[in-house]
Amino acid sequence: MLAGIMNTARASLVALLLGAILMNHPQSTSADHDSEAPVAIVIHGGAGTIRRGDLDADKEAQLRATLEESVRAGHAILLEGGTSLDAVMAAVVILEDSPLFNAGRGAVFNAQGGHELDASLMEGAGRQAGAVASVEGVRNPILLAHKVMTDSPHVMLMGEGAEEFARLHDIVFEPPEWFDTEFRRQQLERIRERDPNAHAVSESPDEWLSTVGAVALDQHGNLAAATSTGGTTNKRWGRVGDSPIIGAGTFADNRSCAVSATGTGEYFIRATVAKDICARVQYLQKPLAEAVGDVIHGELVEMGGDGGVIAMDPAGNIVMDFNTEGMYRAAIAADGSLSVEIYRDGEGSK
Amino acid sequence: MLAGIMNTARASLVALLLGAILMNHPQSTSADHDSEAPVAIVIHGGAGTIRRGDLDADKEAQLRATLEESVRAGHAILLEGGTSLDAVMAAVVILEDSPLFNAGRGAVFNAQGGHELDASLMEGAGRQAGAVASVEGVRNPILLAHKVMTDSPHVMLMGEGAEEFARLHDIVFEPPEWFDTEFRRQQLERIRERDPNAHAVSESPDEWLSTVGAVALDQHGNLAAATSTGGTTNKRWGRVGDSPIIGAGTFADNRSCAVSATGTGEYFIRATVAKDICARVQYLQKPLAEAVGDVIHGELVEMGGDGGVIAMDPAGNIVMDFNTEGMYRAAIAADGSLSVEIYRDGEGSK
Repeated sequence: MLAGIMNTARASLVALLLGAILMNHPQSTSADHDSEAPVAIVIHGGAGTIRRGDLDADKEAQLRATLEESVRAGHAILLEGGTSLDAVMAAVVILEDSPLFNAGRGAVFNAQGGHELDASLMEGAGRQAGAVASVEGVRNPILLAHKVMTDSPHVMLMGEGAEEFARLHDIVFEPPEWFDTEFRRQQLERIRERDPNAHAVSESPDEWLSTVGAVALDQHGNLAAATSTGGTTNKRWGRVGDSPIIGAGTFADNRSCAVSATGTGEYFIRATVAKDICARVQYLQKPLAEAVGDVIHGELVEMGGDGGVIAMDPAGNIVMDFNTEGMYRAAIAADGSLSVEIYRDGEGSK
Repeated sequence: MLAGIMNTARASLVALLLGAILMNHPQSTSADHDSEAPVAIVIHGGAGTIRRGDLDADKEAQLRATLEESVRAGHAILLEGGTSLDAVMAAVVILEDSPLFNAGRGAVFNAQGGHELDASLMEGAGRQAGAVASVEGVRNPILLAHKVMTDSPHVMLMGEGAEEFARLHDIVFEPPEWFDTEFRRQQLERIRERDPNAHAVSESPDEWLSTVGAVALDQHGNLAAATSTGGTTNKRWGRVGDSPIIGAGTFADNRSCAVSATGTGEYFIRATVAKDICARVQYLQKPLAEAVGDVIHGELVEMGGDGGVIAMDPAGNIVMDFNTEGMYRAAIAADGSLSVEIYRDGEGSK
């Protein structure tokens, strides 16, 4: 089933990445691991108005297969003793390389007919973070965000400057055609026909927000979160959403939780969604599901924001919650069980 | 004393701004006001290694006079019944127009010899916010951040796109010479002589961070915060610091507090300083000074971050705290008392 949506280029890149990651853990064998230490991973491919019947069977099968491929890639790294940071990167790379999601290859078109990509990640032990905003031509923005974290004194780089940094660090670029998908071009044209100034936010059911993200817990007890997006269709003026903002779209802190968000970014910034969820866990001692619910169905709804989050606490509890019709999501829980869901009436959290 | 550092252009702009603000409150007279409702304002001109003896008497007098001018301009608006948002903007405009601070006119040089300006603001009633990152040529980035909040569906715009938005909205631009100050050029040259790749962060005593900001409470009980900066000397790669990040450099929420930060921006982003302080006030029910202290002298020091914040709660309590040698700061408290301080042994909070 996977073969149909897998392409050689992506398979090679993932293999390279997995190889590089495993080489960093040459002593990792199952014998080294604390068998009591849970590992878990959860991913999302965006929240929006996704209703049963909106997707044909073939498209739905492709989406589910890619979600499963992504979550399994991250989980394999965790099982081998890899870090949660490596796991969330591997999971997000697969979603970025898929044309099905609004991140990397499948990014929406901006008002200039180009693709501006945003990404961020954070690890919960030292609370180190990296982010890039509005970069063009970078195949995997999440890997550039990681490079910003590891190879610069900075947390966030943007625009041409970030691209210059990327070229200095052997980050893979692709030509514009790589990012041009017919599905997204039709979205742009439909939106422009209705209103040249409109953005995809709060548009029709087939214009999902489709930001991607991953959150994981590794055998060392460390949390990490990553988020990547192509922003909103027809966006202009150098708009920055919540995905590259630490505290809004992404946050990780071993003392509380790790979160990756997807939704109407402006509201997620104003509500500092990811940090606020973790603050409620840390300061109010709320269970993760309750903290997420208070923000996603409370704060955000009061402000008028749509979307959802995936989140995990240091015990490996997973929450996938959203105030929209659906959210593409998958998880492999601490007990090893896999779930892949799209609609509201699927499992909301486990 | 003010005459020496005031110039006609700035005076006109401030007069225009004050005029526009007062026109928005034509019925505001002291008789209309709840005389019980406190108003207060606090500003900063950056934290860093500022020691007695580093400044000559003339420079110190200029700095103190500009801080006083700024805080009085904001306070005058509050006394007239204006909003805290208008007050913090008026205070920040004066600091941006001064060549003494690293914001607007006095912005440091980036690696290309230009000036990239960042600013953000937020109001605590509806938690609306606006921000711009890496804009060039905009005289008062804080007014552009406000325009993003009021006249776009977005919270954050960056780079050339933000400048395009600014031109559509009659934002004032100045030629590059406006922002070129001899003091900052010498900083750039000194840093490049030592290490072409160095940034001003953690540099010598005369290379203060000097971000500016303001926080205010108005007669309507609403808090607001604003922050503006020129970033770090010799900065490259489109680096974004904490100043334009809602939750890091700026945050306001009537349920807790309002904060404007200054310091080593990367740490302030990772610690989501402004939001974290307000979260501790709201969720842990801590007094503002304690919440600020826990973050500035606890979290940030543990991570290795330097800097400080100004903060205010809905009762008008003011906190000015920092873990550096000094912070340029001024306040007019709810009792009407003025303080203008630079060094650590001045009043820390009141």
